[in-house]
Amino acid sequence: MEIALIGIGKIALDQHVPAIAASPDWELAATVSRAGTVEGTPAFTDFDELLVTRPDIRVISLCLPPVPRFDYASKALAAGRHVMLEKPPGATLAECHALTELAKQNGVSLYATWHSREADKVADAKAWLASRVLRSLTVTWKEDVRRWHPGQDWIFEAGGLGVFDPGINALSIVTEILREEIHVRDATLVFPENRQAPIAAEVAFHHPQAQVQATLDFRQEGEQTWSIEAVTDTGTLLLTHGGARMFIDGVEQGASQDGLSGEYPRLYAKMAALVQRGGLDMDLRPMTHVADAFLLGRRETTAPFHF
Amino acid sequence: MEIALIGIGKIALDQHVPAIAASPDWELAATVSRAGTVEGTPAFTDFDELLVTRPDIRVISLCLPPVPRFDYASKALAAGRHVMLEKPPGATLAECHALTELAKQNGVSLYATWHSREADKVADAKAWLASRVLRSLTVTWKEDVRRWHPGQDWIFEAGGLGVFDPGINALSIVTEILREEIHVRDATLVFPENRQAPIAAEVAFHHPQAQVQATLDFRQEGEQTWSIEAVTDTGTLLLTHGGARMFIDGVEQGASQDGLSGEYPRLYAKMAALVQRGGLDMDLRPMTHVADAFLLGRRETTAPFHF
Repeated sequence: MEIALIGIGKIALDQHVPAIAASPDWELAATVSRAGTVEGTPAFTDFDELLVTRPDIRVISLCLPPVPRFDYASKALAAGRHVMLEKPPGATLAECHALTELAKQNGVSLYATWHSREADKVADAKAWLASRVLRSLTVTWKEDVRRWHPGQDWIFEAGGLGVFDPGINALSIVTEILREEIHVRDATLVFPENRQAPIAAEVAFHHPQAQVQATLDFRQEGEQTWSIEAVTDTGTLLLTHGGARMFIDGVEQGASQDGLSGEYPRLYAKMAALVQRGGLDMDLRPMTHVADAFLLGRRETTAPFHF
Repeated sequence: MEIALIGIGKIALDQHVPAIAASPDWELAATVSRAGTVEGTPAFTDFDELLVTRPDIRVISLCLPPVPRFDYASKALAAGRHVMLEKPPGATLAECHALTELAKQNGVSLYATWHSREADKVADAKAWLASRVLRSLTVTWKEDVRRWHPGQDWIFEAGGLGVFDPGINALSIVTEILREEIHVRDATLVFPENRQAPIAAEVAFHHPQAQVQATLDFRQEGEQTWSIEAVTDTGTLLLTHGGARMFIDGVEQGASQDGLSGEYPRLYAKMAALVQRGGLDMDLRPMTHVADAFLLGRRETTAPFHF
């Protein structure tokens, strides 16, 4: 199937283009971007022109930042295209509801992707937890924003989510592996005094019986940590490297993975299956928890941040 | 039917108690509150005790502030009681989803009330707009927080919503009367430097063809304004007094109402009908727009606020 990729920035070049190139399902047929291009692929700068002149391209993958994404997604759905959304699926929950309705009205597929859910050990972690009683779950997501988002000022603008841009990846894993539903009970959001999005956050969740909490920080130099520890009645699970590695009571399970190379290929395989069977995959729970943290969270101010 | 009222504060005494007293459907059988009581009604201070000792009371109405509400609502639903929620229905969207599931599991009714939707002219406004093309809609919701929420510090705490506590009333009307769905496109939230919730806000919404915006302010002395103006292809609608009065092209429609006395009686009539037919009424759209405004909004800081 032919696919067009919209928004040729860092995430598109690092993940989407290689995943599409390696996929048996997809052929990258066009790109749309103000400046970015992919060698050997027809490059558009005007999305409307792509939709009109390339009716043969039935599937659109959107890698833009969340704020402008709705206009592109709604145009594509209204034009009868299937749509795949980078995370988060939009800048607001209500626009995600609107896209869901639009996809249904037009009989096309819509996929809110959560790449971290496709990390290598997430399915194993879910299976291990399924038969156990959770006592506590602790997310520790600490990375250096300068290293992973160099110069990406949009991430600290209103709607850019700040540290919840990576943090929502952790929440996409937590909501996938936990049997029970959680909700934000308490949150503290730390805003640099010159920025509109938090650089760090502490979030405590309500769970029927367990203590569930997340520590997110964008100021982590040196070792980077993306881990989830779940203590149960019969052992402790530790996911590290964003879900790529898993330990039970300290013993690594399965082969140690170097990176996250499986995530985006699995997203594109899922999109291919979704388009073929029809229907939607719009799990908004990770984004709901982020919106709830903003709604409920206490705000603290910290030192200005400059890239 | 017997009903228990939980949280005997200002809104309970001003609105709920008189509405229940005047209703042919309901009898106030008990109250639960740390300090508040209603003369002639058995008063509990412990909610668990009420649930255990008064199994005859099948319906619980919660008038607590939003943050503690979930614990009471989930206990009541788990104990097989029907539940009526003051607005907003919770402190987070995810907890409202959890309550919805819990009500379904227990086969009881759950009603997220939006009292302003029951203002006298809201149904007429919706009918008038149904056949017209909207050009613009402007919410102006300006009131004096010292007058309407004297000393209620919780409203400026994290999760208290600040000016969105009244503002959500406007959004509950807008989402009721508009044919099309809207979503927050841009927002500015003004926080007093000593408070955790905004004292004023400007919100712009996306609408398929119209300009939709809201101006909310808690610092309005003198004349109080709760109005919604909708300009259409064939005339202008103006709702004033929070939906109690309606003007078409400047001409008042129907009898001029003095106050909002119809709102809470209508909520209790709807709850009686909901319990009798079974099922849920949990429209979370007004709260979703507020969460989206917090998620997406730019923050500005203003002078400290003291009651």
